[in-house]
Amino acid sequence: MNLKYIAFVAMLFSVFNTFVMQAQNLSSPDKNFSLQFKLEQNGVPSYQLTYKGKAVIKPSTLGIEVKNAASFTDGFTVSKTEQATVNTTWEPVMGEEKTIRNNYNELLVTLTQPKNNNRYIGIRFRLFNDGLGFRYEFPKQDGLSYFIIKDEHTQFNLAGDHKIFWIPGDYDTNEYAYTTSKLSEIPALQKKATIEISAQQPIANPSVQTPSMMKSSDGLFINIHEAALINYPAMSLNVDSGFKLSSHLTPDAVGNNGYMQTDAQTPWRTIIVSDKATDILASKLILNLNEPTKYKDVSWIKPTKYIGVWWEYFVAGKSTWAYGKENNVKLTDDFTKLTPNGKHGATNERVMHYIDFAAKHGFDAVLVEGWNIGWEDWIGNWKEEVFDFVTPYPDFDVKKLRDYAASKGVKIIMHHETSGSATNYERRLDRAFQFMKDNNYSAVKTGYVGSIIPRGEHHDGQWMVNHYIHVAERAADYQIMIDSHEAVRPTGLNRTYPNWIAQESARGTEFEAMGGLAPEHTTILPFTRLMGGPMDYTPGIFQTDLTYYKTGGNQRVNTTLTKQLAYYITMYSPLQMAADIPENYERFPDAFQFIKDVAVDWDNTYVQEAEPGDYITIARKAKGKNEWFVGGVTDENSRTAIVPFSYLPAGKKYVATIYADAKDANWNQKPQNYVITKVIVTSKSTLKQFVAPGGGFAISIKEATDADIKAFKKL
Amino acid sequence: MNLKYIAFVAMLFSVFNTFVMQAQNLSSPDKNFSLQFKLEQNGVPSYQLTYKGKAVIKPSTLGIEVKNAASFTDGFTVSKTEQATVNTTWEPVMGEEKTIRNNYNELLVTLTQPKNNNRYIGIRFRLFNDGLGFRYEFPKQDGLSYFIIKDEHTQFNLAGDHKIFWIPGDYDTNEYAYTTSKLSEIPALQKKATIEISAQQPIANPSVQTPSMMKSSDGLFINIHEAALINYPAMSLNVDSGFKLSSHLTPDAVGNNGYMQTDAQTPWRTIIVSDKATDILASKLILNLNEPTKYKDVSWIKPTKYIGVWWEYFVAGKSTWAYGKENNVKLTDDFTKLTPNGKHGATNERVMHYIDFAAKHGFDAVLVEGWNIGWEDWIGNWKEEVFDFVTPYPDFDVKKLRDYAASKGVKIIMHHETSGSATNYERRLDRAFQFMKDNNYSAVKTGYVGSIIPRGEHHDGQWMVNHYIHVAERAADYQIMIDSHEAVRPTGLNRTYPNWIAQESARGTEFEAMGGLAPEHTTILPFTRLMGGPMDYTPGIFQTDLTYYKTGGNQRVNTTLTKQLAYYITMYSPLQMAADIPENYERFPDAFQFIKDVAVDWDNTYVQEAEPGDYITIARKAKGKNEWFVGGVTDENSRTAIVPFSYLPAGKKYVATIYADAKDANWNQKPQNYVITKVIVTSKSTLKQFVAPGGGFAISIKEATDADIKAFKKL
Repeated sequence: MNLKYIAFVAMLFSVFNTFVMQAQNLSSPDKNFSLQFKLEQNGVPSYQLTYKGKAVIKPSTLGIEVKNAASFTDGFTVSKTEQATVNTTWEPVMGEEKTIRNNYNELLVTLTQPKNNNRYIGIRFRLFNDGLGFRYEFPKQDGLSYFIIKDEHTQFNLAGDHKIFWIPGDYDTNEYAYTTSKLSEIPALQKKATIEISAQQPIANPSVQTPSMMKSSDGLFINIHEAALINYPAMSLNVDSGFKLSSHLTPDAVGNNGYMQTDAQTPWRTIIVSDKATDILASKLILNLNEPTKYKDVSWIKPTKYIGVWWEYFVAGKSTWAYGKENNVKLTDDFTKLTPNGKHGATNERVMHYIDFAAKHGFDAVLVEGWNIGWEDWIGNWKEEVFDFVTPYPDFDVKKLRDYAASKGVKIIMHHETSGSATNYERRLDRAFQFMKDNNYSAVKTGYVGSIIPRGEHHDGQWMVNHYIHVAERAADYQIMIDSHEAVRPTGLNRTYPNWIAQESARGTEFEAMGGLAPEHTTILPFTRLMGGPMDYTPGIFQTDLTYYKTGGNQRVNTTLTKQLAYYITMYSPLQMAADIPENYERFPDAFQFIKDVAVDWDNTYVQEAEPGDYITIARKAKGKNEWFVGGVTDENSRTAIVPFSYLPAGKKYVATIYADAKDANWNQKPQNYVITKVIVTSKSTLKQFVAPGGGFAISIKEATDADIKAFKKL
Repeated sequence: MNLKYIAFVAMLFSVFNTFVMQAQNLSSPDKNFSLQFKLEQNGVPSYQLTYKGKAVIKPSTLGIEVKNAASFTDGFTVSKTEQATVNTTWEPVMGEEKTIRNNYNELLVTLTQPKNNNRYIGIRFRLFNDGLGFRYEFPKQDGLSYFIIKDEHTQFNLAGDHKIFWIPGDYDTNEYAYTTSKLSEIPALQKKATIEISAQQPIANPSVQTPSMMKSSDGLFINIHEAALINYPAMSLNVDSGFKLSSHLTPDAVGNNGYMQTDAQTPWRTIIVSDKATDILASKLILNLNEPTKYKDVSWIKPTKYIGVWWEYFVAGKSTWAYGKENNVKLTDDFTKLTPNGKHGATNERVMHYIDFAAKHGFDAVLVEGWNIGWEDWIGNWKEEVFDFVTPYPDFDVKKLRDYAASKGVKIIMHHETSGSATNYERRLDRAFQFMKDNNYSAVKTGYVGSIIPRGEHHDGQWMVNHYIHVAERAADYQIMIDSHEAVRPTGLNRTYPNWIAQESARGTEFEAMGGLAPEHTTILPFTRLMGGPMDYTPGIFQTDLTYYKTGGNQRVNTTLTKQLAYYITMYSPLQMAADIPENYERFPDAFQFIKDVAVDWDNTYVQEAEPGDYITIARKAKGKNEWFVGGVTDENSRTAIVPFSYLPAGKKYVATIYADAKDANWNQKPQNYVITKVIVTSKSTLKQFVAPGGGFAISIKEATDADIKAFKKL
């Protein structure tokens, strides 16, 4: 050993002493999770996560690359660490649970860069019993006010070649069908998975969108997403070799990845983990990482069950959004002079028919799409002034329908399709919302079909992320609820902006009329898209064979009828549509009864069975009522669901109305063969329920009357 | 001669027969101009223009290149030609003339592309006695609804190496100083001319902005610009070898040059020509090519003379727009908790002082900048939510000042600096305008200092062009007048949107405090920037030596005091500021009298002398009054102006008050040495007026009373 070698060892030791020795450990309240934070060589931050002793995230580095300035990636020392424990509860305005527990241990590491004038950032970890959330924080300080993010380098180095339920990374759409594969298979499958979608911008390298649902070969369920996406671009995940995922931000029109002003922070990066799939669905980690609402009055925010002039636009040309035959119109045109195409959907007569039906069957509201001028050439032209949001077609009388709906105790839900032209929407927003207030609308479905204007921006970029929130906040000023379609996928912001009542932001029912959804699709969505928040999936299609309409095509909705009922439970949303046309509900009044009865806001939720890609069974207690509802779905395979009723108060008898597939039902044959049975159940009962291929079942439960007990058998 | 050669000649003849033979000729009403349109080989459109037999534009091709589709550049046949003559008059809401003659011969050529399904466009030429306007037109037709412009290829092939007064092409600023050179010298001078300006985006290749003023060696004055820039990007001019100019459009964030929907048309390309420089300044061609206003009521649009809390921000830190010492603020901050910097300009006390001064001296209004929160870090951060346009600083009491101003009969002019964040302005526009109406504001100065948001868009791109017009139209809904700064240069749109009362859009007085303006600058601006419309040049600086303030710096305004008076006549605007601080006007009450007296709206204008870069003398008759005002300016050279009064009604005597440089005055020495004399003049009088280097003079003329005739000498 010569002197040089000794010097080298000493230097190494010094490095270890300065950096590696600064490791910090954190456990979850139940001790199942263990997090270690440390600085690697050169002062690079890193973390690792274990669950019940199993590696979930292997050592993974953290950092933010800055444009035209020093980056927050290395050269750090740990200047301070702080730990805290929180264990509280809170009540959402609407939700799956009346009360939500927020229990975590927190570690805040302050990292200083001595070579950059002691500039510092924070990395805050919150370790819950259901997983980890962490974010970067940029405190206000001398010399750090504004910076532009060139890239975020957050690694999620996984422990193995997990099974993953994924859609490909894309800056503009989340409406892809799911692929199930090994992580290692993604690069080869990426191209095939990137099916054609209107206004898509696929990420070139292998990548997946979040929420990203994985299952390890040793039985761990792992979900990666983000919480509280505010003033920051949405994150996809690069898929690198060696089961390494890393953050991939959505760039803006000039290629930047985020404009930051201190105090600032990134959204939370979330890793929800359990050895039980049902725990994943029950997790409230993402909601817990969002801020409470600042709205003082939330009394106007109401769970809503609605029908709408909508599905008839999808079933092979039954009717159209557009009024005129022309395909080149301007808002300045006189639309009374267009040539009517004869198939316009949102006519006074048709809307009044929907209002009558809603009033008769107890729906809160009727959505009307295609009421306003501009639909003749709304899509695919990157047109800015496509809609004005205040001018109806000649055959839609705003005041007449307003008064008619009011006389029937029904609300009309406004529709604001933007065609992706967010600038046009923003400049007209105050007038559009004032028009709504003047005409008794209190909710609006927004849409973002098409390439975004500002041109070069993306649906999932920082500018649009801010846009959606701006619309929600501005709507709150007018006491208006928002149901956004084609927006960035949710990240729990419905806690902070509870009037942003639901979103689509995934491949929803409309695609059943545009190629069909795989029967497994809705066994995956709750593990992916719905982890972020409520989905306006628009269930309730009873006439699943669309050749019924004899308007051409060979299309079908790939479910049984009762699976559509199950969705009201398995696809959580405080805004639920009965999406089929009234005429079809009138053909199946007994099955329709479930949709009429089902609640949309809940005191409690019990995830009873779940396996992503295979099946889900969930029971829920209606908010403020002694009524329970159960929904169960399966994929293309038949199964027997095991459905206990242990959540029912002990010692009482209940009548359960079971809406189930008949033995010969199947998503593609006899989907309308169902059986409805009533049985008496108690908290000790367990139902073994047949589920047809592509099928599902629904149960409504009430306290049994003496007459019920006499009339119906015990389970 | 063999057969092949014969065949070739025959083919050539055939080409000539089909294309070249379709030449069309058009003359101006006075026959001075002659235009020829023809199709070159391959059906390429081309035009040429002569004036009094001299070539102005040599054969130059025309065409529009389309993205991802066939272009409108060649393969044309002439399918129709139409000629028309118009000779009418009209009255602008405000202007240099009460009545404007619109007299032209028109040629509309319809060009069809047989190989593109007979798709067709129009090229419309209007030949006036002062020059040519032409534009491309895209009629609504089957198969042509939407297209994206990849590039416009309009050539302006000049006849020689003209002298040109130019600023370099730039997508984001028109605030450059002018360079005078030969056309052929531009490439070598481009870099030097591209001085540093906030938020600039210079065009890489040799190019100049319009209005582009040229003078040929044989004495022709040629001005190229555009009229009616609506829903299209602004045009600069590429400078190619051989004295060839060609259109260079401002691209959008993704590199496209225009989104078109039929019916559509480009702006007019204008070529104003004369052998007299005075004719160029008198031309109303650009206004004539704009559409009449659609506003039904214009009674609320009023000429305005104003003072403002403004210049004191420029004179070496006398006061500041910002209230707080901090340099990192958010609109959500509590601004009452900032640390006052002690130099805030827009305080209640200071604004009331300005209001008192305005009331005492008969000004219509007081502009107040720096009244609203956000100025602490408003510039250079590409920050979106920089201002909210409704929240005052703690020391600016909106209601108190509103009532105080009303009690004095003075208006406060609102200030909406956007920092280039147009999206933020648009989404807040309705609230901002409503706030103005609620608080008795009827005019607003807008500002666009900084890089544009939507990021990637440019000040002169199609999106921003539409933005400025949107703001003007929206303002009209609230009966608000707009004075835009840092917007795209004007193209006569003040005819169509008369509440867009003035613009800056050039290097204005503020630069006198930031490096100084060359004495010749204001002898060029009327030939360039002001050809497009009124300029809020903000003249009237009496204290030109800024070292007077003893706040540091060695800065001066490069004019004499009386040259500042001349600007009220030579720099046309129906909105004119007396830009100096009240304290300076109080030191020179006799000279200030001219600013108090001068009109800002006119019945008639007489351009008496002019040579771009050297001198300008203009006389005007006040709208609806028997009062006349004359202004004359020179460059760095002393001269004697020849000023006839032949426009005065014959046979009457008038008293002329002449505000002139003293013999020893000079822009950089004794600029405040002036003499004021009163003389009696008639329509037969001619004044020979000394003008100092960098100097100017102003004259006010009224009918003489008997007392005047006794008191003052005859000229």
